[in-house]
Amino acid sequence: MSKTVGIIGGGQLGRMLAMAAAKIGVRPHIFAPEPTPCAADVAQFTQAQYDDERALQEWARACDAITFEFENIPTRHLDVLSDKLRPHHYALTVSQNRVREKEFLRNLDVPLAGFFPVKSREDLQQAANELQYPIVLKSAELGYDGKGQYVLSSSKDIDEALTVAGDDAVAEAWVPFVGEFSIIAVFGQHNNVVFYDACENIHRKQMLAHTRLPASINQATEALAQNYVASIGNALGYVGTLTVEFFMLEDQSILANEIAPRVHNSGHWTIEGAYTSQFENHIRAVMGMPLGSTKRLGNIFMENIVGLDMQNYRENLPQEGSFHDYGKNPPKAGRKMGHLTKILPF
Amino acid sequence: MSKTVGIIGGGQLGRMLAMAAAKIGVRPHIFAPEPTPCAADVAQFTQAQYDDERALQEWARACDAITFEFENIPTRHLDVLSDKLRPHHYALTVSQNRVREKEFLRNLDVPLAGFFPVKSREDLQQAANELQYPIVLKSAELGYDGKGQYVLSSSKDIDEALTVAGDDAVAEAWVPFVGEFSIIAVFGQHNNVVFYDACENIHRKQMLAHTRLPASINQATEALAQNYVASIGNALGYVGTLTVEFFMLEDQSILANEIAPRVHNSGHWTIEGAYTSQFENHIRAVMGMPLGSTKRLGNIFMENIVGLDMQNYRENLPQEGSFHDYGKNPPKAGRKMGHLTKILPF
Repeated sequence: MSKTVGIIGGGQLGRMLAMAAAKIGVRPHIFAPEPTPCAADVAQFTQAQYDDERALQEWARACDAITFEFENIPTRHLDVLSDKLRPHHYALTVSQNRVREKEFLRNLDVPLAGFFPVKSREDLQQAANELQYPIVLKSAELGYDGKGQYVLSSSKDIDEALTVAGDDAVAEAWVPFVGEFSIIAVFGQHNNVVFYDACENIHRKQMLAHTRLPASINQATEALAQNYVASIGNALGYVGTLTVEFFMLEDQSILANEIAPRVHNSGHWTIEGAYTSQFENHIRAVMGMPLGSTKRLGNIFMENIVGLDMQNYRENLPQEGSFHDYGKNPPKAGRKMGHLTKILPF
Repeated sequence: MSKTVGIIGGGQLGRMLAMAAAKIGVRPHIFAPEPTPCAADVAQFTQAQYDDERALQEWARACDAITFEFENIPTRHLDVLSDKLRPHHYALTVSQNRVREKEFLRNLDVPLAGFFPVKSREDLQQAANELQYPIVLKSAELGYDGKGQYVLSSSKDIDEALTVAGDDAVAEAWVPFVGEFSIIAVFGQHNNVVFYDACENIHRKQMLAHTRLPASINQATEALAQNYVASIGNALGYVGTLTVEFFMLEDQSILANEIAPRVHNSGHWTIEGAYTSQFENHIRAVMGMPLGSTKRLGNIFMENIVGLDMQNYRENLPQEGSFHDYGKNPPKAGRKMGHLTKILPF
């Protein structure tokens, strides 16, 4: 029998992880609550709620190792997966809460924008006094792609910010960044780590729109960022693909923005653009296999296809680049539906 | 709902077709008689015999279009698939029988080694007189990867040759070829055709061992071969990926060897080495989508991993190249288990 990898979550990251697993002979098995998650098109599939411990346990018995594509899983139910879960759910516990995540990064001396936990109007007022407007208020949990975030330019925005972010939030200094980039690393099971080249990311409506490589950062900055990511992974005892997003400032200094303990949208280009994709390397790490080369094959332009735009792409398949359609139907506004990767000669 | 492509056959070609379909948002659904075909790891799966017309019919209702990865399907049962089958099963009827295939090619003025149908010892003796030893006797049906073939160097070999090839066979002149290559074309639904660069193939024990690009043939020869393939596809009213294998002789002239009305082992390199793979372009053609670019990204070396060799690869994942494991367990002698593709800069 082939080995089986269990994947918690049924979205496009699970779909691409499933295909990467199958490429190297590992059977993918998705666990998700939706009746027809897009990842189930290319995998065995168990439909159950994330807190259904009996279903989790039974599914885990059929898996040789387990990983996740989705961050907002209630971690208290993951103990039933025994020691098959990789990375350890400690990484989720840290990344699921922005306050915990920032405190964790601060303890590792990773540079960050100033921040204060906000549980009340008074906390927010005090944070604003310390940080000076503009500031950003973000819900501590369950936010992604800019959901639960609000930029305050003055005290007049406090009410609306609290409505958007809720009463468990974090206030951050506004970072006058000139660019954003991500570092994607893969931690193997033998104390080894490999890095993909830094990805430069352009967001639109707080969602990733484009990724470009090479990123416009210098080598020293990239090496510094890689060092931070290595220390984050080591502190988490991490196994698998780990992504850290950074802000780049005018003076070339950098600040960490957030951790994603998983494969990342900014690494989709690695499917065609690197010797081994982030998805395949994640599966290799999770299964205890040696990691593959992260070498890049050319200059990269990756474009997300979001919402109803997908309809145009489906009707007129792009002539250039590698087109990916996550098979979500019908297309919905504001959702990631696919992407397009172009590789250009160096 | 996503569109669904039905794929008859559950082997590695079906597995790679399924992944290519999912990449562009099409749900793959495998039909095969085996209980755990490797393609079912990454697709919906209907288990039934190829002659179970009721099962075929029911399955066909769930599919928007149907194709096959396996050539030796009894075509008389395929009419129940209505007009969803692409390519039309006429292509199978031609390719399933070597005599029919050679007569078809001869009618199109495609150059071929001399051949005679052989149904008896007398036929074989007469063929040997006409063709001169050495000659090759091949069973007319159900042969692949060198099965059912025998090379006769003199009349002493007649008995054994007939035992191997059976009493429905074809005798061919031995071709003193200096090389073998394949042309892979994809026929769209709008009278368009695209070609991949010619693949140079090295066989070992009558099974493909390596494919290299660029092939050591000149441009004029490649253009000539492409013309033959275009006329074959047009004569078959073909839709999808079509492969024709050729022999190259000392004087640079070429002879067609055989037709494969499907994606082909010599095109596995296109997954990483071309802008659009043979698998994706097959699915695009079958679904009526526009075809993608076949442009090559570098020089190619593709190596098949056969039989128990896979065990070594699994234990020591290759450091270089893109490794594919078809997930067949346990490895069996003489079976194609995976492949490795290396892309080298032009």
